[in-house]
Amino acid sequence: MARKPQRRQRHRFRVRAAPVGHPPGTLLARPHAAPCVVRVIAYGPDAFVEQTVRDAAELEPLLRQWAVTWVDVEGVGDVDLIARIGRIFGLHALALEDVVNLHQRAKVEDYQDHCFIVSHIASLAEFVSTEQVSIFLGRGFVLTFQEGKPGDCFESVRQRIREARGRLRRGGADLLTYALLDGVVDGYFPLLEKLGDRLDAIEDEIIARPAARPVHHLHELKRDLLCLRRTIWPLRDALNGLIRDESALIGDEARVYLRDCYDHCVRILDLVEIYRELSADLIDLYLSSVSNRMNEIMKVLTIFSTIFNPLTFIAGIYGMNFRPESSPLNMPELSWYWGYPFALTLMFLVAASLLIFFWRKGWIRTARGPLDAQPGSDPRPAGR
Amino acid sequence: MARKPQRRQRHRFRVRAAPVGHPPGTLLARPHAAPCVVRVIAYGPDAFVEQTVRDAAELEPLLRQWAVTWVDVEGVGDVDLIARIGRIFGLHALALEDVVNLHQRAKVEDYQDHCFIVSHIASLAEFVSTEQVSIFLGRGFVLTFQEGKPGDCFESVRQRIREARGRLRRGGADLLTYALLDGVVDGYFPLLEKLGDRLDAIEDEIIARPAARPVHHLHELKRDLLCLRRTIWPLRDALNGLIRDESALIGDEARVYLRDCYDHCVRILDLVEIYRELSADLIDLYLSSVSNRMNEIMKVLTIFSTIFNPLTFIAGIYGMNFRPESSPLNMPELSWYWGYPFALTLMFLVAASLLIFFWRKGWIRTARGPLDAQPGSDPRPAGR
Amino acid sequence: MARKPQRRQRHRFRVRAAPVGHPPGTLLARPHAAPCVVRVIAYGPDAFVEQTVRDAAELEPLLRQWAVTWVDVEGVGDVDLIARIGRIFGLHALALEDVVNLHQRAKVEDYQDHCFIVSHIASLAEFVSTEQVSIFLGRGFVLTFQEGKPGDCFESVRQRIREARGRLRRGGADLLTYALLDGVVDGYFPLLEKLGDRLDAIEDEIIARPAARPVHHLHELKRDLLCLRRTIWPLRDALNGLIRDESALIGDEARVYLRDCYDHCVRILDLVEIYRELSADLIDLYLSSVSNRMNEIMKVLTIFSTIFNPLTFIAGIYGMNFRPESSPLNMPELSWYWGYPFALTLMFLVAASLLIFFWRKGWIRTARGPLDAQPGSDPRPAGR
Amino acid sequence: MARKPQRRQRHRFRVRAAPVGHPPGTLLARPHAAPCVVRVIAYGPDAFVEQTVRDAAELEPLLRQWAVTWVDVEGVGDVDLIARIGRIFGLHALALEDVVNLHQRAKVEDYQDHCFIVSHIASLAEFVSTEQVSIFLGRGFVLTFQEGKPGDCFESVRQRIREARGRLRRGGADLLTYALLDGVVDGYFPLLEKLGDRLDAIEDEIIARPAARPVHHLHELKRDLLCLRRTIWPLRDALNGLIRDESALIGDEARVYLRDCYDHCVRILDLVEIYRELSADLIDLYLSSVSNRMNEIMKVLTIFSTIFNPLTFIAGIYGMNFRPESSPLNMPELSWYWGYPFALTLMFLVAASLLIFFWRKGWIRTARGPLDAQPGSDPRPAGR
Amino acid sequence: MARKPQRRQRHRFRVRAAPVGHPPGTLLARPHAAPCVVRVIAYGPDAFVEQTVRDAAELEPLLRQWAVTWVDVEGVGDVDLIARIGRIFGLHALALEDVVNLHQRAKVEDYQDHCFIVSHIASLAEFVSTEQVSIFLGRGFVLTFQEGKPGDCFESVRQRIREARGRLRRGGADLLTYALLDGVVDGYFPLLEKLGDRLDAIEDEIIARPAARPVHHLHELKRDLLCLRRTIWPLRDALNGLIRDESALIGDEARVYLRDCYDHCVRILDLVEIYRELSADLIDLYLSSVSNRMNEIMKVLTIFSTIFNPLTFIAGIYGMNFRPESSPLNMPELSWYWGYPFALTLMFLVAASLLIFFWRKGWIRTARGPLDAQPGSDPRPAGR
Repeated sequence: MARKPQRRQRHRFRVRAAPVGHPPGTLLARPHAAPCVVRVIAYGPDAFVEQTVRDAAELEPLLRQWAVTWVDVEGVGDVDLIARIGRIFGLHALALEDVVNLHQRAKVEDYQDHCFIVSHIASLAEFVSTEQVSIFLGRGFVLTFQEGKPGDCFESVRQRIREARGRLRRGGADLLTYALLDGVVDGYFPLLEKLGDRLDAIEDEIIARPAARPVHHLHELKRDLLCLRRTIWPLRDALNGLIRDESALIGDEARVYLRDCYDHCVRILDLVEIYRELSADLIDLYLSSVSNRMNEIMKVLTIFSTIFNPLTFIAGIYGMNFRPESSPLNMPELSWYWGYPFALTLMFLVAASLLIFFWRKGWIRTARGPLDAQPGSDPRPAGR
Repeated sequence: MARKPQRRQRHRFRVRAAPVGHPPGTLLARPHAAPCVVRVIAYGPDAFVEQTVRDAAELEPLLRQWAVTWVDVEGVGDVDLIARIGRIFGLHALALEDVVNLHQRAKVEDYQDHCFIVSHIASLAEFVSTEQVSIFLGRGFVLTFQEGKPGDCFESVRQRIREARGRLRRGGADLLTYALLDGVVDGYFPLLEKLGDRLDAIEDEIIARPAARPVHHLHELKRDLLCLRRTIWPLRDALNGLIRDESALIGDEARVYLRDCYDHCVRILDLVEIYRELSADLIDLYLSSVSNRMNEIMKVLTIFSTIFNPLTFIAGIYGMNFRPESSPLNMPELSWYWGYPFALTLMFLVAASLLIFFWRKGWIRTARGPLDAQPGSDPRPAGR
Repeated sequence: MARKPQRRQRHRFRVRAAPVGHPPGTLLARPHAAPCVVRVIAYGPDAFVEQTVRDAAELEPLLRQWAVTWVDVEGVGDVDLIARIGRIFGLHALALEDVVNLHQRAKVEDYQDHCFIVSHIASLAEFVSTEQVSIFLGRGFVLTFQEGKPGDCFESVRQRIREARGRLRRGGADLLTYALLDGVVDGYFPLLEKLGDRLDAIEDEIIARPAARPVHHLHELKRDLLCLRRTIWPLRDALNGLIRDESALIGDEARVYLRDCYDHCVRILDLVEIYRELSADLIDLYLSSVSNRMNEIMKVLTIFSTIFNPLTFIAGIYGMNFRPESSPLNMPELSWYWGYPFALTLMFLVAASLLIFFWRKGWIRTARGPLDAQPGSDPRPAGR
Repeated sequence: MARKPQRRQRHRFRVRAAPVGHPPGTLLARPHAAPCVVRVIAYGPDAFVEQTVRDAAELEPLLRQWAVTWVDVEGVGDVDLIARIGRIFGLHALALEDVVNLHQRAKVEDYQDHCFIVSHIASLAEFVSTEQVSIFLGRGFVLTFQEGKPGDCFESVRQRIREARGRLRRGGADLLTYALLDGVVDGYFPLLEKLGDRLDAIEDEIIARPAARPVHHLHELKRDLLCLRRTIWPLRDALNGLIRDESALIGDEARVYLRDCYDHCVRILDLVEIYRELSADLIDLYLSSVSNRMNEIMKVLTIFSTIFNPLTFIAGIYGMNFRPESSPLNMPELSWYWGYPFALTLMFLVAASLLIFFWRKGWIRTARGPLDAQPGSDPRPAGR
Repeated sequence: MARKPQRRQRHRFRVRAAPVGHPPGTLLARPHAAPCVVRVIAYGPDAFVEQTVRDAAELEPLLRQWAVTWVDVEGVGDVDLIARIGRIFGLHALALEDVVNLHQRAKVEDYQDHCFIVSHIASLAEFVSTEQVSIFLGRGFVLTFQEGKPGDCFESVRQRIREARGRLRRGGADLLTYALLDGVVDGYFPLLEKLGDRLDAIEDEIIARPAARPVHHLHELKRDLLCLRRTIWPLRDALNGLIRDESALIGDEARVYLRDCYDHCVRILDLVEIYRELSADLIDLYLSSVSNRMNEIMKVLTIFSTIFNPLTFIAGIYGMNFRPESSPLNMPELSWYWGYPFALTLMFLVAASLLIFFWRKGWIRTARGPLDAQPGSDPRPAGR
C-alpha cells in the first residue's frame, strides 16, 4: 500500500533551452550526449560507396564526386565535429544549435540553399520514448543527425540503396529525404499497434475485474499518447509545409511521394486521437464499474444489517431481566407455553417480510436485463 | 461476475502500413485477403454488356468499344491481377498500393489523367465494421475495388444500368462515379437508424432499471460511433475536394449531383455527432441514477440502523445482571410493577421520534415532486 | 420503480434518405404524408388576389399577371401535384426530391434561375418537434412547401399582404422571402422563452429538493436544445450564404432586411448555447447536492452507530453470566453498591465524549457559513 | 431544508423579439420601459452648450450650429419621441427598432451616412445585470440611447467636455464615440474586480470548510460570468469591425484610440475566460474535498463498527444462558476462576489487533504528508 | 481542519484599467510602484559606454553619438521622468500609458517611427508571479521598462555587450530587441522545469498515498499554469506579428533570429498545454484512487458487520430468558448436553460460509491482477 513507486523511467515532458546567457548559435555539448559516429553513403544510378569517416575533411571529395551524398551522424556529443561538418555544408548556426540542443519540435525551416527538417522517431519499451532526428537537405547531399540511442530506423533505406531496389538510386537528394522521412513515419505504426493492444488489455481488465487498478495503466497510456501526439502533430504540419512550399530543393516526383508520407502522418494522428477518446471513455466505464460495485457492496451491507438489526433487538427484548415475580406485567411471555416458538416465529416473519421488501426493490434479483441479449440477436442489416 | 468477456470481434482501431523496408509502390498481398472476382459492365446510351473476366487482357477491347467501362474488382488478394489492371489503365503505383493496403482514410487524389477516390462502406452486425472501396475515375472508365466482404452495395447501380433507369446510361464515367459514391453514402442511413434504436433502447434501460449495466452497451455504441465518424469525416472532406477542384474529369452535371451526395454526408456526420452527444448525456443520466439509487440504499440502511441501535441498547441495559440484592440502586426498574411496559413504551417513543426526525428530513416521504407533472400539462405554445 | 416509461413521443433524431436503389431526383410519397393544400396569393402594389387551387395549371395565368405570386403548399403527400408545380416553375429535380424527402438540413442552393431554401419551424408541446419549410425564390414567384403539421407560421405575412401594411406589397419576391424567413426565425423566440422557464423550474427544483429527480427533466431539456441547435445552426449558415452570395434574385433592400433576420438567428443560437451551458452547470449543481445529501445521511448513520456501539457493548459486558460464586474476580461490579449508577455514568460519559468529538469535527454544527450572507450585503458597485 | 428560494432576481437569459406579426421596423413601446429624458451637449473646440430638451424639434438648430452635437436619450419608453429623433437624424428603421427592442447583441452596423453601435454596460448588485446602450455616429452628431436604469456611465465624458480636458473638444464625433465606448468598456473592470473577490472568497470557503455549500455560490458566479461573456464577446467583434472597416465616419486618430479600447475588451474577455476556468477547477476541488470528507466519515464509522462488533459478540457469547448444570460442556468458562478477566483480556486483544490493522492501513494516521511542506520551502528560482 | 488558509500571496488574476474618468493617455503613478532607476548602455561595433542617468536630458547626446542606445528603466513609479523620456524619444501617449498601467497583455503595436512591445517575465517562488517588461524599438534606440521587482533578466545581454561576444555589438537596435526578447522567453524554461517537477511530485503523491490531499496542490499548479498560459499565449501572437509585419525597423537577420525566439515560445506553450492535460488526468487518477479507497473501506465495514451481525444474533437468541420450567418448548437447547458446543459450531459455520461468499465475490482476495506485470515484461519493439 505504502510502497514507493519505482516508475522513475516514465516519459518526462521537458523542454531544455540553450543555457541562459550564451549568444544564439552557440554549440554546447549536452552532458551524457553520445559520441558521434559518422557513416557516409554516396551513390549515383550505377554505383555507390559506403564508409565510416572520422575526419570531416573526408566528406568534401565525396560531395563533388557523387550525385547524392548521405552523411548519417549518430550521436551529437562531439560538438567540434558537428561544427566542422556545418562549415563544410554551409549550414546555418541556429539550425546546428537545434541539432545539438535536443527536444526540439518537429519543423521544417528553409534556409535558401538548404532545408532543415526536425522529426522524431519513437520507441516503446515500458513507456514511449522519443529520439530527435535532424535532416538537412541540400543540393546533392542529405545530412542526418540521430541522438545515438540504440536502434537504427534508416537501415532499410541503406539496404535499398545497396541493392538498388526501387527508384531510390536513380532519384536525387529529395527522394532520399522522402525515403528517410517515410522510414521515420512508418516506424510509428507498429508502436501504435502495441499501444492499441495495451488499450484492449485495459478494457478487458476493466470489464472482467473492476477491482484491479487499471486506471494507473490507463494514466500511463494517456501519457504515452500525449507524448506521441506532441511528436507527430508538428511533424504533420512540417510535412505539409514541405509539400506546399515552392522550395527548389524538392522535385515534383518527390513531392508526390511526400504527399503519401503526409497521408501516413495524418492516419497516425487520427489513431492517436481515437485512442485518446477511447481512453477517456474507459475512465467513464471504470468509474461506472466502480460505482456498480460499490452499489453491490452497499446492498449486501444494507440487507444484512437491516435484517439482523430487528432480530437482535427482539432477542435483546427477551433477554431483559424484568422480574416476573414483581409484577404480572413484567414479561409474562417468558413463561408462556408457546413463548419461545412464538419469538422465533416473530423473528422469522420479520426477516421474511424484509427479504420480500428488498426483493421488491430489486436488490436481491440478479441485475442481468433483456438488453444483454440484444446485440447478439441483432441480425445483419439487410439494407447494406 | 468473473466470466471472461467473449467480445473479441469488436472493431479494433488499427492502421497497418506497408511492411517496413519495402520501396513505396510495392504491392504485397495481405494475408487472408479475398481472391479477386472481376465483373465488368460496359455501356453506352443504347446498349450494355455485362461479363465476368478472368484475364485482364479482356478489358482493353471493351475500353475502346464502349462509352463507359466499369470494372468492379471484388477482393484484393490477387496482387498480380491488380498490377496488370493498373498497367492497362495507367494507374499510379502509390494509388495501387493504397488499394491493396487496406485501412486507408477516405481521400481523393488527383493524378492528372485519373482520379483516385478511397471511401468505406459500413455494416452493422454486433458491431460496426467497415470495408474499403477504392474508386478510379478516368476518361471513359471507372474502376472499383472492394475488400470482398459479403454484401454488394453496388447491385442497385448495376440494376439501374441494366434497366436504363434514370440518366445513368446517357451520362459519362463521372455520373457513374457519383452513382457509386451515392450508393456508398446512402448505405450509412439504415445503419444509423439501427444505432439510433440501440441508443433509445439504452436510454429506456437506464430510466427503467438503473441496476442493469447499460454503460457497457453505451461504451460499445460509442466505439461504433467513433468508428463511423472516423470513416465519414474524411469522406466528407474528400467529396468537398472533388466538388471544388477543377478536375476536367468531372462535368458540371455530375458536380451538382455530387453536391447532393456531399449534403447527405454532412447529414450523416451531423447525426453521428448528435448521437455522440446523446451518449455523453446518457452517462450523466446513468451516474445520477446510480447515485440516486445509492442514496436510497443508504437511507434504508441509516433508518434501520439508527432506529434499532438505541432500541437494542435499551434492551441491553435491562439485560444487565446487576444484583438488586447488593444495593437498592442496582436496577430497581426490574422490580417495578410497570417496569416492562415502561421499557417497551420508552422504546416505542424513541423509535417514533426518530421516524418523525427522518420524515422531517424527507427521507421517508416519496421523492416524486411537482415538476414531474409539469411537462405533460404544458399546453402547446400558441405563438407558433 | 419498475414502471415502464411512456415517453415514446420524444424527439427522435432521424435522417431518412431516399429509398435505396432509386435514381436521384425520384419523387416518392412518404407514408403518412399529409395531402397537399395549395393556397395562392398574388399581389402587386395596388391589389391582390387570394385563392385555393386544386389544379397546378391554374397557377400559370397568375404568374404572368401579377408582380409577385406566392404559392403555399401545405402537406407533401401528393407527389404528382408537386411534380407538376415543379415543371411549371422550372424547379430542379434534386431540389424537389428534398422537398418531399423531409428531414433535410437547412440550406440555400442556387440553381441559376431560382434559389432553393430549406428551413425549419419548431414547436414545443411536451418535447420540441420540427417541421420542414422549403422555399423556392424565383423571378416573380415564391413557392413554399410545409409538412402540413397543424399551425401556420405564415398567417401574419398573409395578413400583412392583405392589409398592405409595411413595405411588403411594394417589394418584390425577395422581400416576401425575407418576410417568410423572418416569420420562421421569430417563431423560435417564444419557444426559447418556454425552455428558459423550464430550465429555471429545474434549477429551483434542484436547489429546493435535491431528492426529486430533476436530471431526467434536464436530460429531456438537453435533447430539446440539441434538436434546436441542429435546426438553427445550418439555418444561420444558409442565411449568411444568402446575404453574401451575389445572387441576382435578391435586391439590396431585401439584403439589409435579411441581415436583420440573420442577426435574430445568431441571437437564438447564442441563447441555445447559453442554455446548454447552464444545463451542464446544473448537472454539477445536482451532483454536488446529491453528494451533500449523501454526506448528511452518512453523518447521521455514523453518529448514531458510533455512539450506540460502545454503549451496547458496555451493556453487553454487564449482561454476561460469569458466576460470582466461582471466583471473586468474576464480575464483582455486579454486586457493588454503586454498580448500576456507575455503569450508567460510564455510558453517559462515553456518549458525551463522542458527541464532543463529532462537534469538533463539525458534523453536528449546522452547515450554514458566513458566505451565505455575503452576496445580499454586497453594496451596488460605485464604479459604474 | 425545504425553504423556497427567494432568488428570483437572478439574471434570466432572455431574448425578446419584436412582437410577432408586425412588419419589420415597427416601433412598439415595451411595457415598463422608462420614459425618455433627452440631454444634449453640443460643442466645438472653444465653447459648448448643455441643455435638456423636451421636443425633438429643438435639436435641429443645434445640429447646424455646432461641430459636434451629442444627444443622450435616457429611457426608451417614449416611442414617438424616438421616432421623431430618428427622422431628424435620418436613422434607419431597423436600427431604431433595435434601440427600442432591448436585449440585442452588441454589434456595429454601417448604414452609409451613419453607423449604429449596440453595446452594454453591466452592473453588479447581487447578480450581474446589463443595460443596453445604443450609439449612432453620424456626420457631426452622436446619439446615445440608454435603457434608463439608475446610474450614468457617461458622466465622466460629459465632465471632460465641460472642462475641455484632453483632446475631446478638439476632436470630432468619432472621438466622442470612442470616449463613450471607452467609458462603457472600462466600466467592466471594477465589476470583474468584485467577481474576482467573490471567486477568492468561494475558494477560501471550499478549502477551509467543505461542509458549507459553496457550489451554489459558484453556480451563481458562473451564471454571472456567462452573462458577461455573452455581453462582451460580440462587443469585441463589433469593435474589431469598427477598426477594420473603411468607414469614412471614423478618422485615423479615433481609429488608434479605438484600437486601445478594443485591447481593453480583449483583456476583459481574457479575464472572464480565466475566471470561468477557475470556477470549473473549483468544482473539482470541491468534489474532491467532499469525497475526502466522506472518506473520513466512512473511516470513523468503519473503525467504530468494526471494533465494537466482535466485542459485543464476545459479550453476547458470555451472556448466553446455557445451563452448566445440564452438561459440563455448557459454558464452563463462566465458572472459571479467571473467567471474567480472561474475557476482558480477549476483548482488549481483539480491539488492539484491529487498531493495529487500521493503523497499518493508514486510516488512523493523520493525512498530512511531506508535500504539504514543499511549496513553501521551494527557494526562488535562481535562473530568472 | 478548520485552520484559516494563509495563502493570500497566491496569484490573483486582476486587470486594472486606468482610473475611470481620465482622458486616455493620462499617466498616473500607481500606488506602491517602484521608483525609477535609469541605466543606459550605448554601443557601436568598437566601443560602448555604460552609465546610470538621473536626468532624462542626459540621454539626447548619447542618442546622437552611438549606433545603438539602450535605456533600461527599472521601476515605473516616477511618472514625470517617464513622460520626459517619452517626449525625447517621441513615444505615443497611449503606449506610455500602457507602460505605467501594468497588467497589460503581451502585444506588439506599430507606431510608424517606433514599435511598442509588451511582454512579461515570470518567476516562481511559492506561486508564479509575473512582471511586465515594455520594450520600445526605434531607429538607433531601444527602451525597456521593467516593473522593478527584484531580479534582472537582462544582465546576460548587458554582459554580452560589454564583452562583445556574439554578433550583438555589430548589429543594430533590432538585434538588441531580439536578444532582450530571447532573454525574456528563455527565462520561462527553468520555471517550467520546476513546475514539471512539482507535477511529478504530485503524481507520486497520488499514486503512493491517496489519503493525502494533493488536489489542493494540483489546484495551485493549475492556477500557475493558467497564469503562464495567459502570459505566453499573447506573446506568441505578438512575436508572430513582429516577424510577419513589414516593419522597416526590423532587418532580415533579426527576423531570422526572431523566428527562433518565436519557436521557443511555441515550445513553451506546448509544454504548458501538456502540463494542463496531465493535471486534468491526475484529477481523474486521484478520484479513482479515492473511490478505490472508499471501496476498500466499505468492504472492510461490510465484511465485519455482515459476519458479526448473525453471530451476535445467535448469541442473543441463547441469551433470552424464556423459562424452561413453564414449557418444554422454551429453549430446551439450553439444557442439551451438546448445547453450547452446538451453538459455537453454528456460529463458526455461519462465519465460514459468509467468508466463502465474500471470497467468491472477490472482496477478500488481493486486487493485484495479471496486468500489473505486463508493461515491464513487454519486450522492446523490434520494428523500430
